[in-house]
Amino acid sequence: MSQEFVAEALDPFVVMNAIGLIAFALVGSTKAIREEFDLFGVTVVGLATAFAGGATRDVLVGRVPLALQSTSEIGLGTVGVALAIGLHLVLEAPDDHPITLFADGVGLAAFTTAGAIVAVDVGVSGFGVVAIATINAVGGGAIADVLLDRSPFILFEDFYASCAVLGGAVYLGATLGGVAGSTAAIACAVVTVLARMAAVTRGWTLPTAQTLRRREEIGKN
Amino acid sequence: MSQEFVAEALDPFVVMNAIGLIAFALVGSTKAIREEFDLFGVTVVGLATAFAGGATRDVLVGRVPLALQSTSEIGLGTVGVALAIGLHLVLEAPDDHPITLFADGVGLAAFTTAGAIVAVDVGVSGFGVVAIATINAVGGGAIADVLLDRSPFILFEDFYASCAVLGGAVYLGATLGGVAGSTAAIACAVVTVLARMAAVTRGWTLPTAQTLRRREEIGKN
Amino acid sequence: MSQEFVAEALDPFVVMNAIGLIAFALVGSTKAIREEFDLFGVTVVGLATAFAGGATRDVLVGRVPLALQSTSEIGLGTVGVALAIGLHLVLEAPDDHPITLFADGVGLAAFTTAGAIVAVDVGVSGFGVVAIATINAVGGGAIADVLLDRSPFILFEDFYASCAVLGGAVYLGATLGGVAGSTAAIACAVVTVLARMAAVTRGWTLPTAQTLRRREEIGKN
Repeated sequence: MSQEFVAEALDPFVVMNAIGLIAFALVGSTKAIREEFDLFGVTVVGLATAFAGGATRDVLVGRVPLALQSTSEIGLGTVGVALAIGLHLVLEAPDDHPITLFADGVGLAAFTTAGAIVAVDVGVSGFGVVAIATINAVGGGAIADVLLDRSPFILFEDFYASCAVLGGAVYLGATLGGVAGSTAAIACAVVTVLARMAAVTRGWTLPTAQTLRRREEIGKN
Repeated sequence: MSQEFVAEALDPFVVMNAIGLIAFALVGSTKAIREEFDLFGVTVVGLATAFAGGATRDVLVGRVPLALQSTSEIGLGTVGVALAIGLHLVLEAPDDHPITLFADGVGLAAFTTAGAIVAVDVGVSGFGVVAIATINAVGGGAIADVLLDRSPFILFEDFYASCAVLGGAVYLGATLGGVAGSTAAIACAVVTVLARMAAVTRGWTLPTAQTLRRREEIGKN
Repeated sequence: MSQEFVAEALDPFVVMNAIGLIAFALVGSTKAIREEFDLFGVTVVGLATAFAGGATRDVLVGRVPLALQSTSEIGLGTVGVALAIGLHLVLEAPDDHPITLFADGVGLAAFTTAGAIVAVDVGVSGFGVVAIATINAVGGGAIADVLLDRSPFILFEDFYASCAVLGGAVYLGATLGGVAGSTAAIACAVVTVLARMAAVTRGWTLPTAQTLRRREEIGKN
């Protein structure tokens, strides 16, 4: 193994992107299997889930999507699709299985980090960094929901996209504070995955405007 | 206040874009509040409604979206979100309130104009100018409907997108006729908002192919 | 007629793109007429169906969409819309009429070929060529379904997008094998349209993961 290969494999973007691709291809394919899509449909949904967030990120920053240029992207996506089919042959109902929920959280964290790294590299505003990190992270789930005829709006109700916003803000803060890229990447990924796992296991929610209004009315009486 | 700041503040694109951002953030947030989204969801829907049309416009003409670069965009969007939350605390049901309908018409007109200005600047075809003006204007409402799990197709049935097409055509005609940019911008915005307000208050509709067929059949008998 | 005009008219991309634009504008408009959209809505859905796939292709490869630059695109799209209105005045229910199904298959084949040609020209990966050919081909049907409040997921269940993948792979293989561009284009278009016509007339489907699991269980017993 050449030194260059090792150096590239340790690049935070490459590592996070690879984890995200496998995890989201697995999650998307698993949902498509559950809906009894044919194997072509399962592959399309799996790859679309893996590639949609990063492709949107690349288009927004003015690049040709990595998924259309790099052969390793399609290879990693295919690994995730194959894992999903293998898991279906072994387990009964992997759609709401802890493995799928965990893979989804890991993919969310990895793509939040990958998006934040690209955004800081190209030099957008602070809001732009958090926005691109979040789009990279939730784009895959949104396209999977559209292809599976579900509504993607749950992504913005549940404590899901919020975790990516949190992680993106951590990466932004760390970078502005002078923290090295790889340390900022690890912090971003850890905060995102822990927030998502906590939200899943504890059923976290945020207050609504109705709650504020009721609080205000209670305060008046 | 420096002369440069005044000059920029009087730039037709800057003025129209600022009005559109505040108005559409207000409209999008108000819809999300009505659906009892949490405050994070309200902010996401509000900002997405404000930014989606302009971001699509920028991607189509090969630019990195302004919303990801300029800090004033996020500031103006946040003002709209805050206004929506404030209005909800003061009024009972602002979703179908005249204020919301008026803000939506104003945002539609402002973004039609902003889109037409950018399209003429980058030099696309006449159809391209009208198309980009319309996409800039209706993109926000379309993304809001998708995020709120409503169908965006109403945008193309109702006399809504038609107003943007009309305004875009006015700007195109004025520009081709040698009218100065700021006069063309005002004409475009006024025509669009008046058409939309008339459509809302008078329930305007356009004929369908079925109407034509029926007319033809009546003509035959 | 000048020699240059003849040379351009015989360019494989120009021919395939023109066929696709007319065919898909016809199909999109026909669907919108069936849903009793007004004539503005019919035109918007028709043009959006004709332009969406190519515009997505252009944005992905970093170009300003041809539909926003070239006046011939809007002309060809308008021909398709006019044909759809004419057909509605002559025939009773052209939505599931053999003419519409055939036009859809022809448009699918023409846009698969147009997408593959552009993708090979800009130099993306092999997967990128097949992906862009497929996106160019199915993008129009997807946007039509969204605008008509139908789910686009049928595109990935039915043997529809699969035909574009097949055609894109044929073009890629032919190009890698050193076959001339125009021959590869004809091969791609013929394979795609024949696969689609066979799928429609014979009700072709692909196996699902559930089929594999059942086969495996039968193998065990």
